[in-house]
Amino acid sequence: MPTLSRLTDPMFGSPAVLDIFSDTGTMRRMLDVESALARAEAHCGVIPEAAAQVIEQVCALEPAQVIDFDALAQAAVSAGNLAIPFVKQLTAAVMQRDADAGRYVHWGATSQDIIDTALVLQLADALHEIDAGLLALGDACAAQVGAHRATQMVARTWLQHALPTTFGLKAAGWLDALRRDLARLDLARTHARALQFGGAAGTLASLGDDAPAVAAQLAQALQLDLPALPWHAHRDRMVEVATTLGMLTGTLGKMARDISLLMQTEVAEVAEPSGPGRGGSSTMPHKRNPVGCAAVLTAAVRVPPLVATMLAGMTQEHERALGGWQAEWDTLPQIVTLAAGALRQMTDVVAGLQVDAARMRRNLDITHGLILGEAAMLELGRRIGRLPAHHLVEQASRRALADGTTLRDALAHTLADDPLHQGLLDDATLDLLSDPAQYAGQSTSFADAAVEAWRHAREHRNHA
Amino acid sequence: MPTLSRLTDPMFGSPAVLDIFSDTGTMRRMLDVESALARAEAHCGVIPEAAAQVIEQVCALEPAQVIDFDALAQAAVSAGNLAIPFVKQLTAAVMQRDADAGRYVHWGATSQDIIDTALVLQLADALHEIDAGLLALGDACAAQVGAHRATQMVARTWLQHALPTTFGLKAAGWLDALRRDLARLDLARTHARALQFGGAAGTLASLGDDAPAVAAQLAQALQLDLPALPWHAHRDRMVEVATTLGMLTGTLGKMARDISLLMQTEVAEVAEPSGPGRGGSSTMPHKRNPVGCAAVLTAAVRVPPLVATMLAGMTQEHERALGGWQAEWDTLPQIVTLAAGALRQMTDVVAGLQVDAARMRRNLDITHGLILGEAAMLELGRRIGRLPAHHLVEQASRRALADGTTLRDALAHTLADDPLHQGLLDDATLDLLSDPAQYAGQSTSFADAAVEAWRHAREHRNHA
Amino acid sequence: MPTLSRLTDPMFGSPAVLDIFSDTGTMRRMLDVESALARAEAHCGVIPEAAAQVIEQVCALEPAQVIDFDALAQAAVSAGNLAIPFVKQLTAAVMQRDADAGRYVHWGATSQDIIDTALVLQLADALHEIDAGLLALGDACAAQVGAHRATQMVARTWLQHALPTTFGLKAAGWLDALRRDLARLDLARTHARALQFGGAAGTLASLGDDAPAVAAQLAQALQLDLPALPWHAHRDRMVEVATTLGMLTGTLGKMARDISLLMQTEVAEVAEPSGPGRGGSSTMPHKRNPVGCAAVLTAAVRVPPLVATMLAGMTQEHERALGGWQAEWDTLPQIVTLAAGALRQMTDVVAGLQVDAARMRRNLDITHGLILGEAAMLELGRRIGRLPAHHLVEQASRRALADGTTLRDALAHTLADDPLHQGLLDDATLDLLSDPAQYAGQSTSFADAAVEAWRHAREHRNHA
Amino acid sequence: MPTLSRLTDPMFGSPAVLDIFSDTGTMRRMLDVESALARAEAHCGVIPEAAAQVIEQVCALEPAQVIDFDALAQAAVSAGNLAIPFVKQLTAAVMQRDADAGRYVHWGATSQDIIDTALVLQLADALHEIDAGLLALGDACAAQVGAHRATQMVARTWLQHALPTTFGLKAAGWLDALRRDLARLDLARTHARALQFGGAAGTLASLGDDAPAVAAQLAQALQLDLPALPWHAHRDRMVEVATTLGMLTGTLGKMARDISLLMQTEVAEVAEPSGPGRGGSSTMPHKRNPVGCAAVLTAAVRVPPLVATMLAGMTQEHERALGGWQAEWDTLPQIVTLAAGALRQMTDVVAGLQVDAARMRRNLDITHGLILGEAAMLELGRRIGRLPAHHLVEQASRRALADGTTLRDALAHTLADDPLHQGLLDDATLDLLSDPAQYAGQSTSFADAAVEAWRHAREHRNHA
Repeated sequence: MPTLSRLTDPMFGSPAVLDIFSDTGTMRRMLDVESALARAEAHCGVIPEAAAQVIEQVCALEPAQVIDFDALAQAAVSAGNLAIPFVKQLTAAVMQRDADAGRYVHWGATSQDIIDTALVLQLADALHEIDAGLLALGDACAAQVGAHRATQMVARTWLQHALPTTFGLKAAGWLDALRRDLARLDLARTHARALQFGGAAGTLASLGDDAPAVAAQLAQALQLDLPALPWHAHRDRMVEVATTLGMLTGTLGKMARDISLLMQTEVAEVAEPSGPGRGGSSTMPHKRNPVGCAAVLTAAVRVPPLVATMLAGMTQEHERALGGWQAEWDTLPQIVTLAAGALRQMTDVVAGLQVDAARMRRNLDITHGLILGEAAMLELGRRIGRLPAHHLVEQASRRALADGTTLRDALAHTLADDPLHQGLLDDATLDLLSDPAQYAGQSTSFADAAVEAWRHAREHRNHA
Repeated sequence: MPTLSRLTDPMFGSPAVLDIFSDTGTMRRMLDVESALARAEAHCGVIPEAAAQVIEQVCALEPAQVIDFDALAQAAVSAGNLAIPFVKQLTAAVMQRDADAGRYVHWGATSQDIIDTALVLQLADALHEIDAGLLALGDACAAQVGAHRATQMVARTWLQHALPTTFGLKAAGWLDALRRDLARLDLARTHARALQFGGAAGTLASLGDDAPAVAAQLAQALQLDLPALPWHAHRDRMVEVATTLGMLTGTLGKMARDISLLMQTEVAEVAEPSGPGRGGSSTMPHKRNPVGCAAVLTAAVRVPPLVATMLAGMTQEHERALGGWQAEWDTLPQIVTLAAGALRQMTDVVAGLQVDAARMRRNLDITHGLILGEAAMLELGRRIGRLPAHHLVEQASRRALADGTTLRDALAHTLADDPLHQGLLDDATLDLLSDPAQYAGQSTSFADAAVEAWRHAREHRNHA
Repeated sequence: MPTLSRLTDPMFGSPAVLDIFSDTGTMRRMLDVESALARAEAHCGVIPEAAAQVIEQVCALEPAQVIDFDALAQAAVSAGNLAIPFVKQLTAAVMQRDADAGRYVHWGATSQDIIDTALVLQLADALHEIDAGLLALGDACAAQVGAHRATQMVARTWLQHALPTTFGLKAAGWLDALRRDLARLDLARTHARALQFGGAAGTLASLGDDAPAVAAQLAQALQLDLPALPWHAHRDRMVEVATTLGMLTGTLGKMARDISLLMQTEVAEVAEPSGPGRGGSSTMPHKRNPVGCAAVLTAAVRVPPLVATMLAGMTQEHERALGGWQAEWDTLPQIVTLAAGALRQMTDVVAGLQVDAARMRRNLDITHGLILGEAAMLELGRRIGRLPAHHLVEQASRRALADGTTLRDALAHTLADDPLHQGLLDDATLDLLSDPAQYAGQSTSFADAAVEAWRHAREHRNHA
Repeated sequence: MPTLSRLTDPMFGSPAVLDIFSDTGTMRRMLDVESALARAEAHCGVIPEAAAQVIEQVCALEPAQVIDFDALAQAAVSAGNLAIPFVKQLTAAVMQRDADAGRYVHWGATSQDIIDTALVLQLADALHEIDAGLLALGDACAAQVGAHRATQMVARTWLQHALPTTFGLKAAGWLDALRRDLARLDLARTHARALQFGGAAGTLASLGDDAPAVAAQLAQALQLDLPALPWHAHRDRMVEVATTLGMLTGTLGKMARDISLLMQTEVAEVAEPSGPGRGGSSTMPHKRNPVGCAAVLTAAVRVPPLVATMLAGMTQEHERALGGWQAEWDTLPQIVTLAAGALRQMTDVVAGLQVDAARMRRNLDITHGLILGEAAMLELGRRIGRLPAHHLVEQASRRALADGTTLRDALAHTLADDPLHQGLLDDATLDLLSDPAQYAGQSTSFADAAVEAWRHAREHRNHA
């Protein structure tokens, strides 16, 4: 089930994940489930070994050799799901080889067993991809933190210059969020590896006493966990994948917001990597469009409501729902695909990010040192108390704004004009107070801590 | 841009609308816009007539003859939208015929002009389909109202039996909501027929003094309205389509909820039309799955969050956004397709709905007449005042529940046992009070009013 | 029903609308409905005139004199809605004055009749406020358009400098969107003025043959429209209010996004009005936080999902729903309150917006004229054809970027270096091409058209 | 910050959680944070011990003694958040006692440090309540599973009778989902216990070299974790609370859907506990409105879009956002309150649920045994092969439907009429096949497994 348009697929998805959720990818896994089911049932003596062998052979073919996709899609309208016509077509294909084997296709299972377990297999593969992508992005971020541990820049709150910080700390904020995303992804992957196998009513009555053995065998064959009971109408495992990727997309969106703001013509502190045809304009050669960030921000707009769809769909009726379950079919693949695509785009952006440290340094001076008012106030406060210090700095700041001079000079003049405080700060001190690097606080140690935590999380996995 | 998976497309979409939003459908309309642009510019003397003719000829070809879809999708990743590589490919195709004409492809326009105007053309076509579908569904509803004007059934509140009503009134509620949807659709269609044409900054500077004439000519050629100014970053016209279809889908969802509840095995008052393979189960022949309602309810779960996406996307940056606009690309087509699909499904359901009037009548008696307590109370109230009447009916109701008898008999006994009220109601009156048909209130006149209003709305359109 | 916390109420709401949806505001209107109902029924001879008079007297008291709010809230837990305990308390209050009159309180109505009609009255009042606010904001915008009809600034796409435009055109884009919001609001107000009156099952059976007269009388007394039939479980009228305000909030959010981006320290082209304590920081005197924009952007994040809630709630069961209707209770007031608050904030911002035209002009030069490449290309194209022109400008642009010079000078040198094109453009022409004002396209006429359309829409209303 | 209206608060919230998020509850925790900050700073020698003592004393007062709530709310409009005027008022209150101490209020912190850490403390308390509630609900469910381990009922798919199951298995499905919710809640609680402390730019520059010690001390005092770095603009910890409660609400909504459907007048298999005034109607004594389920379903409609708001808000600008953060303020408390309220309601419902096992058994027969077709088919299949068996049962089923007889009798006649299969099944076998209890599959063992898993999860916690 490809979930995005073909034309915009490559823009918003990642190739591997698009492939997993393609029509072929879906049919491939539905065949895998039927094949494993037949094998498990033969193993437990529920169906003849010979039948299982034929079913396995047919299921091993290319999906397009077994399934007529168009006919399937059309038949699903009346049937209400893909599995009913899928089983019919598969049965027909098996019967062509061996009429008797055809009787044992899909034995004891219900449509939703196949659809859900195939989805679980798709998720396993897709989340594996996303996990690898997340490691790569985290490593790229960690590299940026390392490279810009001490690269001074301005911190912006409310989109206004606030105080000095470092680009390393900004990237460390991204990195630490990615580390938490990695941990959450790990859990969601584990929770989502659950076999769905309950038969028409979730009791597996159709398999009689063989049910437990077949279920165990089937789970093992597909490398899935065997849950305490079927979960046809309890969807939290699937929803947890959605919320986890929703948070990841949120983290990526925050990064894209930061980077696209830093790329503004007036700010120009970073740039997305360039490449032939990438974000450029032949008529406007000065433009470097943040196309990667735009794709990520698009995902960040689209995914949250899709997560709401998954949550809203949980209110399902009895043993099998109408509406809530079906709403997942296109929605969850879209979430996974958008998250994977955003991850891929952001990895490209961060890995190739062009950081203009000189411009960052220059931009720190836009307010003529006013962003260092807090530093001056604290220094003065140590000498004359907090309130008088606050008063002096306020005076100097207004003076600097009015005269178009720097806070340093305005402060020097303010002190000189004030009989009480003449000579309070000498030139060397004033110079020191005007150096943003002197007021970077814990930015370096915070950044180091984030890198350390990332390495630990990564290593912990390597040992696993 | 097909917006749903191919396999589930027919289940949740309508063929005509799927076609409109297919990749071919999108490319077709982008070619139409470029063709009309060249023609308008030639007409105004902006580009040579000969160039316009070649461009028109190329644009009249099948999209697949001009555009390499796969290459386009791939190039869009770096470009950030479909129009940039589309114009490149189109230009190349034109230049193959006439190198000079190639210079005039897309003259003075910006990518978003083409993408948006093509979308506007798609919406015009899709909303035309939906309008026709809405008329058909309304007519089917009106027919049900007419046929079941006096078909008694129970009204249910909180999923509990409340009082008598008619199936005609229930269907009239649906009908009147559809009438309001029709009026809203009309407006949204009108508002959405706006040409997008502003050039790179929305000023049409590239066309100099010819801009107004070209814009007017282009709008006329495409049968679109010419707005006061370009609307690249103001998306309310597109969002209004989404909200309008969101409300329509809500109305359809309400109908599907009602019908699927009435189809429950225990209620069995209506059934979706049957057909080969439709909602049936070979192993469970008693089942008549509400597959049409399920598809509609699926849309009713999926569309509201997609509308939220459209609304959230409105917060766009400056003259062209990153994220907010792009989020529309797959979302609006999904909304339109889901709404159109739900409309088609519900039209089939209502037109072929099997109504079991006898079962409706029998179900009215499930509470042994308790649903007529209000009627009895009002009748008694007229004779002995409201409070004593209320007291008597409460007594009788408890008695009926306790003895497993009807309210009629319990009331007869209660009155007989009560020296004050002996003989207050004779048998004929008691019988009358036990007839739900006598307590249907304005159900018939309400139903008639809804049909009348529908006919008026429809006729008003016919005269238009 | 106040829907926001008391502490953040003033930040995100408007005083008038907060008052309308306060607990007192809700109770006031529920009393008004019961009062009008009694009057209508007395007028039609359904209840005694004397009873109606007492009921009217009690309902005319302050809500807190009739209703014990805490007890009401507590009783609603078991009852499932506010109207059941409300009617009990009102009945008790009436009976204290006149036991007989107490029997006629709420005669023939159902809980939802009262709750919905009271909501309709609240919406009428709130939308009246919002309409007035929208007119005020539109006028403020129109004034900005007028004042800055020719104020040059750069158009930004993808957050990058693109081409010249005017601040008048930017504000005209806001204005034209507000005009459409005004028209939509007008419709939603009309559609939402519908009496809800159907009794327990929507048939008004409880009023027998008097039903039509009482309903008509009640609608007239409350100045509401009488719909063809009750709409307990068909909520599109209420949802349309939500979607309309959702789009308005989207427009406001777009304005807030633009303004907050223009207020960035590095851009500094506009500033929110200042005031004591407003957005300032004593320690960071250079900061001018966009607090108004932040409040509007908050609404723009919160409202879209709330609209989705309203749409999702439409899928209601039978004659009265469980869940879908109740989900509206706090949601719709939140939407109205947030929209009204955002409108108030944005009106303050736009009316007092500080526009730094000089800075806008200076910012146009950041790219050293590269944004005028299109203008140069068109001028050269007229002389030597489009392709060679394109080639020349590309060359010059790269030269300007490399040398840190202006496009004008780079172009002069490029032409001088090129034997083919020496002297193609004289100094005067080059100067003209370097003037952004010469390349503003239709910005003035588009802006005028928007103001004209606004005035027309406004006048049209004045004549109404 | 109370987030729901006062009148509907008790309906949708739980008292304890409403109290935590009340205005007083919020101010209480903001005072606690300021108090702990002063203490930590005195401990590290950053501020004088005497000042800390005064600050602590003032912060220990009742919030209403320190803070003028109305003035605070009003001042927040200009300030843009609650902490700025809060610190002003607190400073004034401290200075009244000791002018010098006033200088040290809020030393080195930023507004968001206080707001976020207070929120973290609220969440800790609220999630503690929810955890206890979840244990209670799970235990109530486990008790229902135990009591109805073998209570036969019909499984319903697509709202149609499917096959036999047990009420124990249905309740086990709920229980197992609650177990997963419990595990997720545990994690979210752990992740959300993170101190926010970064100063104006997230570098803690204001505290110089004392920063690490103060931060560590503060975290310890508040019993919170000290994260690697501040997280002002990285909100995933808060969002994870929202998604976790979103999934819990989904589980509760599924339960409410099931129960309200089972309570329908026509089904009548369970009933919510009764109580004075609870869900009853004096005029309709047969009604037992599912008021608890309605409140839960309301939450299930409202919470998913609110979770989307939290996710959408993650895309925050730089070091402190405008819009995304502020959108959390009312939204997260609403989610927590709605989830807690739904949990409380569902606990009441499940603990007092009236289960009518006899009616469940009777409803199994509504289809005259057709739901046992699969059982018959399997039994016949064992004797004559799957296809002929399928054919026979299909025939018999159609016959049963046509004749209005049972599947058992129809099958007996079908076999008798068929020369090939006469006598294939004797009466005893036919009787056995007609007993739903014989076809309950693994319902008991699945139910036992769920209870076992719940007990294990619970015990595991007890040992923790």
